[in-house]
Amino acid sequence: MGSINIAEKLGLITEYWSPRTVATVNDYDVRLVKVQGEFVRHQHVDSDEFFLVIDGELTIRMDDGDVTLRPGDLYVVPRGTHHQPVSAVETTLLLFEPSETVNTGDAGGPMTATSTPI
Amino acid sequence: MGSINIAEKLGLITEYWSPRTVATVNDYDVRLVKVQGEFVRHQHVDSDEFFLVIDGELTIRMDDGDVTLRPGDLYVVPRGTHHQPVSAVETTLLLFEPSETVNTGDAGGPMTATSTPI
Repeated sequence: MGSINIAEKLGLITEYWSPRTVATVNDYDVRLVKVQGEFVRHQHVDSDEFFLVIDGELTIRMDDGDVTLRPGDLYVVPRGTHHQPVSAVETTLLLFEPSETVNTGDAGGPMTATSTPI
Repeated sequence: MGSINIAEKLGLITEYWSPRTVATVNDYDVRLVKVQGEFVRHQHVDSDEFFLVIDGELTIRMDDGDVTLRPGDLYVVPRGTHHQPVSAVETTLLLFEPSETVNTGDAGGPMTATSTPI
């Protein structure tokens, strides 16, 4: 592979809440996702989940309170922690998580999407 | 933990080529590093290594050619691939790699540094 430019890859993403894989690191994926609105509340029972905001603003609602992330802010949701990502404006994120991680975790439902390469 | 701002953490780093851990994702570290000049050529025999340039410009010299990364560019050096990161200007990077990864890989030597939390 050559180098990958985040903005260029994000420009190819047309669907909200549907992560796309841009690189792998061993058995982990580096994913980019474009979001707006409210995602489903869920947890990943077996894995932490890394969020980095590229542009926009993301709030992660958790039982212990909200975490709001702006560009250059990162956060790791611990495994087994219910969280609901929401965003009032179009927001772009970089995620780092095991390749088998499914976006909706234990919740499933219509927002479930498999992260395919882009 | 709360959210972590990359620029704020980078402002605390005073030493070149000495990664600092800002978060963990399962058994992986998210590390920030400030670099300038030439690092030692090395490989990580058991792991891929993820680089994302935050600011500046990084060239990764490899046997197959150089890869040059600018802000927003990412690259994964495959396991078992000799690489030498070099940077003409002060450059800041985000790394993802297994927590046991040592910066100088199989080369060792005086640039070896353990990534401690910051």
